[in-house]
Amino acid sequence: MVAPRSDSGGNVRARTLKAAHDLFTKQGYQSTTTREISARARVAEPTVFRHFGSKVELFEASILEPFNEVVDEWTRSWADMPTEITLEELAENLVDGLYTLVWEDRRILRELMVARSDPQSTLHQSAVAISAQFREGFCAVLDVGVDIARAKELVYVDPPATIGAVASMIIGSVLLGDWAYPANRRTPGRTRMVREMARLIVDGIAHRHS
Amino acid sequence: MVAPRSDSGGNVRARTLKAAHDLFTKQGYQSTTTREISARARVAEPTVFRHFGSKVELFEASILEPFNEVVDEWTRSWADMPTEITLEELAENLVDGLYTLVWEDRRILRELMVARSDPQSTLHQSAVAISAQFREGFCAVLDVGVDIARAKELVYVDPPATIGAVASMIIGSVLLGDWAYPANRRTPGRTRMVREMARLIVDGIAHRHS
Repeated sequence: MVAPRSDSGGNVRARTLKAAHDLFTKQGYQSTTTREISARARVAEPTVFRHFGSKVELFEASILEPFNEVVDEWTRSWADMPTEITLEELAENLVDGLYTLVWEDRRILRELMVARSDPQSTLHQSAVAISAQFREGFCAVLDVGVDIARAKELVYVDPPATIGAVASMIIGSVLLGDWAYPANRRTPGRTRMVREMARLIVDGIAHRHS
Repeated sequence: MVAPRSDSGGNVRARTLKAAHDLFTKQGYQSTTTREISARARVAEPTVFRHFGSKVELFEASILEPFNEVVDEWTRSWADMPTEITLEELAENLVDGLYTLVWEDRRILRELMVARSDPQSTLHQSAVAISAQFREGFCAVLDVGVDIARAKELVYVDPPATIGAVASMIIGSVLLGDWAYPANRRTPGRTRMVREMARLIVDGIAHRHS
């Protein structure tokens, strides 16, 4: 008997990751069981464990794989067409990709930030692992950024500080929630924030002199 | 008998606030008692309560008064010498003031962010009150920002988004800690981050066209 296409290994894995991501981001880590995930993904529970080993590994993968995809897609967009793509497009793609991701994961990322500074937390090890992977991702962004700056003849004075500031702005604009927006104004939504941050990054980087 | 100068009302209040700020930021809210604060401030405990009402009010004041001072000082620096002060100086003063403050208060601000999204937390009401006051402060920064833009003939397209992005960057660059900095590089310290963020803000705002 030929297995139906939807049950090939890749599909099972992707479906499980998607279900896990949906449930973890909606309910948090503690309240979500692998049983629920397997039911939502229409995958047998042992198959879930065969693919991911444990609930915590599945959790980490459900946060990290989408993050790595955003970074990979962005670095590829530069590698594939370095002459056509503009600084504006590069900035907008990065801001849009990260903002959307952090927005989806905001609940779980707040949990992880708390866990990161609490060695007693169940999620402490995951938080350490995930923050290390985020930093690897920003390291890849930095390498591409230096390459872009060279190609576009920009003076790029302090790349680690630039990347740190830009990443803080994008992640912070979601995770800091209502701390950082002026009172008495409607809090700007995704479209306005992405446009504004891309503008700040492009102009903020493109006008330096040596 | 004439009371020694150091025991005048203003000094007692300031000393109490300083001691409270030192202890809350070092030990967190729960672990700090008003008794410790009064001992450190060399002020009788009933006097502490006469000035601040309760531990939680003292806590809120110890976070909010320094924040309001930074914002007031910054808006005054513009009001006092609008023709002499440069955009660079305005950006650097704001970034430096906020970064230094958030750095000092990082522990307590992380606690407050957690409490903000947990209605069961002892600090939930304080977190709501403090975030509202922060937003009032950023509203004052926005008003002055619009005024600066008019005076310097800048095209200032979406002020709430600009202030939200800038505030997120400054606060996030401290509070997000090791999540937002590229791996394999020394994490930039205060001087580099303040310089970089001021640069991004000035160039990011000053080059728009209508």
